[in-house]
Amino acid sequence: MQLTRAADYAVRIMIYLAGLPQGSRPNRAALAEAGEITEAFVGKILQSLARAGFIDSQRGMKGGFSLSVSPDDVTLLDVVEAIEGPTRLNACLVPGDSCGRKGSCPAHRVWAEAQDAMTRVLRRATIAKLAAESYTECPAAEGGT
Amino acid sequence: MQLTRAADYAVRIMIYLAGLPQGSRPNRAALAEAGEITEAFVGKILQSLARAGFIDSQRGMKGGFSLSVSPDDVTLLDVVEAIEGPTRLNACLVPGDSCGRKGSCPAHRVWAEAQDAMTRVLRRATIAKLAAESYTECPAAEGGT
Repeated sequence: MQLTRAADYAVRIMIYLAGLPQGSRPNRAALAEAGEITEAFVGKILQSLARAGFIDSQRGMKGGFSLSVSPDDVTLLDVVEAIEGPTRLNACLVPGDSCGRKGSCPAHRVWAEAQDAMTRVLRRATIAKLAAESYTECPAAEGGT
Repeated sequence: MQLTRAADYAVRIMIYLAGLPQGSRPNRAALAEAGEITEAFVGKILQSLARAGFIDSQRGMKGGFSLSVSPDDVTLLDVVEAIEGPTRLNACLVPGDSCGRKGSCPAHRVWAEAQDAMTRVLRRATIAKLAAESYTECPAAEGGT
């Protein structure tokens, strides 16, 4: 029950792009370095973010990547789901016939409630807000839970 | 970011055992059938639950498995963590040096907050409570989120 590395890295890239001065277009190598991601991996993530309509790229000498949406309109949940697909804490939360026990299983509604609690937090955090906080100290930095 | 099948099945087994009349000791085949799990897989899950101290087994003709703890004292989170280990929504939530960006990353505290929101729900749901609800209709049955 853990976020994929790809989703974590996608969030890093989105926050980084949102924090740059307008008109900046870092290339793949610069994004890999900023996100501490290998270049091969960053390429795949950029493809997914482009497919989701969150970034676009320009070719050429001054080419590179930039956001194609306002970072106020994109949440942490949006970015995670662009990479991982819809959040389903348990297979039974996939709509339809994903589990024959839905009608009688008392755990089903707890999984749904836990998923809602989690996604509510991720939906509140816009990329713009996180980019604005980007270089301030993080209060939970050494925490865990 | 999805629960493993093993954890889902472990929850099914715990709820099933908690709902049985006192003194019942179903065998592995009966637990596999009740949980709709293959016998090979149920064996592995029973080992993990026994290792966590939640169930024990008796050999022989009248042998089988039963809870070795009060179902009031075991939560959905306990069962999930017995199978998957401590819940870490993102790798950065592992204490220590799991991510060098903890001190500056604005997403870190959001992952922590989302994890707390989710685990809080799972910690509230005891196996005893779920077993008591076991055969009543589930309000979220057809939902998803």
